[in-house]
Amino acid sequence: MPLPGEFHEIAKRVNNWGRWGPEDEIGTLNLVTDQVVREAAACVRSGRRIPLALPLRQDGVQTGVIPGRVNPLHVMVQINQEIFGPGTVACSDDAVTMGLQAATHWDALPHVSHSGKLYNGRPAGTVTAHGGAAFSGIDKPRHIVSRGVLLDIPRALGRERLEGSYAVTPQDLDAAEEFAGTRVRAGDIVLVRTGQIRTYLSGGKEAYGYPSPGLSVRTPEWFHARDVAAVANDTLTFEVFPPEIEDLWLPVHALHLVEMGMPQGQNWNLEELSTACGEEGRYAFLLSATPEPFVGGTGSPVAPVAVL
Amino acid sequence: MPLPGEFHEIAKRVNNWGRWGPEDEIGTLNLVTDQVVREAAACVRSGRRIPLALPLRQDGVQTGVIPGRVNPLHVMVQINQEIFGPGTVACSDDAVTMGLQAATHWDALPHVSHSGKLYNGRPAGTVTAHGGAAFSGIDKPRHIVSRGVLLDIPRALGRERLEGSYAVTPQDLDAAEEFAGTRVRAGDIVLVRTGQIRTYLSGGKEAYGYPSPGLSVRTPEWFHARDVAAVANDTLTFEVFPPEIEDLWLPVHALHLVEMGMPQGQNWNLEELSTACGEEGRYAFLLSATPEPFVGGTGSPVAPVAVL
Amino acid sequence: MPLPGEFHEIAKRVNNWGRWGPEDEIGTLNLVTDQVVREAAACVRSGRRIPLALPLRQDGVQTGVIPGRVNPLHVMVQINQEIFGPGTVACSDDAVTMGLQAATHWDALPHVSHSGKLYNGRPAGTVTAHGGAAFSGIDKPRHIVSRGVLLDIPRALGRERLEGSYAVTPQDLDAAEEFAGTRVRAGDIVLVRTGQIRTYLSGGKEAYGYPSPGLSVRTPEWFHARDVAAVANDTLTFEVFPPEIEDLWLPVHALHLVEMGMPQGQNWNLEELSTACGEEGRYAFLLSATPEPFVGGTGSPVAPVAVL
Amino acid sequence: MPLPGEFHEIAKRVNNWGRWGPEDEIGTLNLVTDQVVREAAACVRSGRRIPLALPLRQDGVQTGVIPGRVNPLHVMVQINQEIFGPGTVACSDDAVTMGLQAATHWDALPHVSHSGKLYNGRPAGTVTAHGGAAFSGIDKPRHIVSRGVLLDIPRALGRERLEGSYAVTPQDLDAAEEFAGTRVRAGDIVLVRTGQIRTYLSGGKEAYGYPSPGLSVRTPEWFHARDVAAVANDTLTFEVFPPEIEDLWLPVHALHLVEMGMPQGQNWNLEELSTACGEEGRYAFLLSATPEPFVGGTGSPVAPVAVL
Repeated sequence: MPLPGEFHEIAKRVNNWGRWGPEDEIGTLNLVTDQVVREAAACVRSGRRIPLALPLRQDGVQTGVIPGRVNPLHVMVQINQEIFGPGTVACSDDAVTMGLQAATHWDALPHVSHSGKLYNGRPAGTVTAHGGAAFSGIDKPRHIVSRGVLLDIPRALGRERLEGSYAVTPQDLDAAEEFAGTRVRAGDIVLVRTGQIRTYLSGGKEAYGYPSPGLSVRTPEWFHARDVAAVANDTLTFEVFPPEIEDLWLPVHALHLVEMGMPQGQNWNLEELSTACGEEGRYAFLLSATPEPFVGGTGSPVAPVAVL
Repeated sequence: MPLPGEFHEIAKRVNNWGRWGPEDEIGTLNLVTDQVVREAAACVRSGRRIPLALPLRQDGVQTGVIPGRVNPLHVMVQINQEIFGPGTVACSDDAVTMGLQAATHWDALPHVSHSGKLYNGRPAGTVTAHGGAAFSGIDKPRHIVSRGVLLDIPRALGRERLEGSYAVTPQDLDAAEEFAGTRVRAGDIVLVRTGQIRTYLSGGKEAYGYPSPGLSVRTPEWFHARDVAAVANDTLTFEVFPPEIEDLWLPVHALHLVEMGMPQGQNWNLEELSTACGEEGRYAFLLSATPEPFVGGTGSPVAPVAVL
Repeated sequence: MPLPGEFHEIAKRVNNWGRWGPEDEIGTLNLVTDQVVREAAACVRSGRRIPLALPLRQDGVQTGVIPGRVNPLHVMVQINQEIFGPGTVACSDDAVTMGLQAATHWDALPHVSHSGKLYNGRPAGTVTAHGGAAFSGIDKPRHIVSRGVLLDIPRALGRERLEGSYAVTPQDLDAAEEFAGTRVRAGDIVLVRTGQIRTYLSGGKEAYGYPSPGLSVRTPEWFHARDVAAVANDTLTFEVFPPEIEDLWLPVHALHLVEMGMPQGQNWNLEELSTACGEEGRYAFLLSATPEPFVGGTGSPVAPVAVL
Repeated sequence: MPLPGEFHEIAKRVNNWGRWGPEDEIGTLNLVTDQVVREAAACVRSGRRIPLALPLRQDGVQTGVIPGRVNPLHVMVQINQEIFGPGTVACSDDAVTMGLQAATHWDALPHVSHSGKLYNGRPAGTVTAHGGAAFSGIDKPRHIVSRGVLLDIPRALGRERLEGSYAVTPQDLDAAEEFAGTRVRAGDIVLVRTGQIRTYLSGGKEAYGYPSPGLSVRTPEWFHARDVAAVANDTLTFEVFPPEIEDLWLPVHALHLVEMGMPQGQNWNLEELSTACGEEGRYAFLLSATPEPFVGGTGSPVAPVAVL
């Protein structure tokens, strides 16, 4: 069953293949220029730092529904081990096993493919068990630091939070942008708050994942028009789930990652940031969110920090 | 065999227990105030970003000598899986098993203990197999963003790199500070370059670890005097190895982590940063290096970025 | 809260410490003599083999309630990789992360301690993060092959299966022994069927673990009197759960593993064996159930086979 | 570069595709009939049991040369944890991460493919990241118990051990069979001792793997003629390494696994068995070597036991 024509029409409009050359592996992150970073630094006024990652622990957001996406198993491999003999300085060491997409993370561009293709027209078959993604792996961007803008949809709409299955529209983004009092510009990283992560934070693990509010299939064109570098939000599914168009699953993933070459972030905790931005009355900040450079990774845990 | 008197004398002079209250779990990171962060942001002039993490891959810096500190095993758990049926958008997912101290990382305060104690006088026994470190785990600081200063010892001394077993002294730090043209201040994160990581980068995995240049047992007092927030360098052992005083193993670890409550970073690749700072003629920058928040972790991989 | 006096009285009656010398690390497995094994081989009449392990997969019996006891995460690390060049023979390799007690497994003697002691009076503190169990690890027995006897409690009682929280008593064992038509002897491995695993096999993962039928605190004396080498059954908890005596948790574990030095098996699928024994009209067989020799392991997955 | 004609000629002579029907997934293990198992049980005379697995530990046989084939990382996830409150029975639990082919193991039939095919003509592409091998996974045989025969090549040839790169020939197998005083029959599992594992046992980890004695490309026809059920030996590479014919890598793997559908065992420690068989003057025994049933696994660790 091929993807519907409607999908392909949007795809054509947002496609960035070749825009940064046939060899490009980082897509819209090319938009984060030194100038953008200088402007991001200029956003720092109070020096307040807000962490956006969920704690990494076995009782994480995964429920077992997605095969292989395991919550972190953190183990101690040494505990106060006196390596050099009794009475010497003692060491403790740990190890972890976890899904790279299990917690607060970035999707790398090859995290999804459609019609046999990855970003920039590379064959889907270049992702293999031996080495992961040959192209556009999560190690390729080297750094993700830019201006971040919080689009706080529920606050802009005067709500506590969005209900499950609410599709965030371009109009919602416009409203939140106006509420934020700043215009989203080329190279920005947009954080779209839905409030959905409250469900997880208050113990509703299953309900956090489904049904979920998230981005509408109409929003990639908005991000494309603004030349956004990346988008992250506070949901498990990123896009509205179940999807808006019957039998069209994960269209936003496909448009962002494959067509636009734009990384996506999921399970970002934007609650404290929402409060802080509200208090300071400004929604733009320096965002530092460099992924762990797993060679060939199709994603990576990240510990993003907003500096206001 | 108890630790020698000399160690205890230095320990007394640098001890920070109780300085931020009996409940404190983050030690010298308390010194990173909003004001320090504002000054860090003011260091951003060119907008150039330099990543400091080594790529995460199975062929990492670990040789197997340290039990349990395993190089990353990165695996694909899904490859272009058409979860929702043939022809639908396809997903790739990965997982990893790795030692938290295996690659570019932070040591959390409870990574070492001596004389049965951790930072702030907590019993070593509060690190357990069930949950890791009950106090001062790597998740406790929430964020590490501050002004970074590169102390480029070999450049300051007019050398290519320091030889194995070279102990970096307070005088070397002074010289590098003068070379850098900036004074190290309270709340700064100091990056001490030795050039040792070149050994690893050119294929010398065994030689990278031993013998290694590194910090002398005399340097913690220097860091203490300046009220530094954290120190990282480009070696596996952090401190000079083999040690300067017979049978006194890992004294710098014990002084920094246990006595001062100051996190340490190892295996940071400072080569590109050295070049960039040399080119720009300035050695202070905004450093963003928030660890992954493993609950109870005694360390964490980190993907630090210097923003010049 | 100390363990109740009742527990200590039973403990005294079944204690085997010192019975095989102060250095002994394998407990009741000493009872499996060459003679017992010859008799076990003599039980083989039809040559029919019945496997008793559950398949190892991510959707295993663990629900996440027991921290760290993770279901197997089986991953491919190479898929048809032409290691020696295009067109050469291609290789596929896999790896796994799993809890050693997660699936069909043996508990090694140091899996539990009470009152600070392990089997044969060793201090509980000899189990460490560095190396696991210094004594009586799962690698110590070297092999587990003996005569197996199925005590099919529900069949003996004329039932389909035992209900949750049913405590199997010594009288039940007597009844099942009579039903089996063979007397349990020194060195035998007794498989006690409750039928509880049917709950898991039919999809009831939560209900499989709780409430669970299992061995009564009265049965260790029965096994002790018969000089049984090991006992396994088809439940997650092994003993009846919740327990019979308020606030006395896991007494059977403590009596078997610590006092008697007798290994225990859990999550053994005895359904097919029950059918086969019923068909052949005999309940004794050669049982081969050697654990994987994890050095210092306090348990191990096992793939037991009954040969009839 | 296609495989040479010589390979294809042998392949034709030993091919078993379709022999047990087009749906067959277990190949030569079909030859282990109830009758064979009865005869295996009849081999038990002394009741002596010899374990054939190497201990599972981080310092295992892997050197890092084969990507992803990691030695066991055994970790404690609970140590004497008083789950139900202070003073209650305390539990210790462990977990492991390891390559399924890292230690003493069986290769499942889909462990290798050639010319795009697996055993019984299945496409190589049926091995995927999602679920592993769809056909002939290591869970499919359900049990491996049969008559085992030790072909002790060095003893038969009057040597201590075979030197590296020695190719075991059909004539060597004949000589060892005569030395053993038993004829290899249909359904037997043949253990071919080279003595190479002594290199590992005495600390020569690198030398153990290369150069290695092992089976010649001429031996599959011998095993095929005798209708052997499986073959295992005491080397890392199984077949002679480097190979006998230039640019023909792993031909024995391809012939056994793909053409014949015969499982192979590697890293089996046959030293103690060699001594025992020598002492008892007989080389046939009951061999119990059921793999752990990893669903879709292309291999599995195994703890084989020979019962004499």
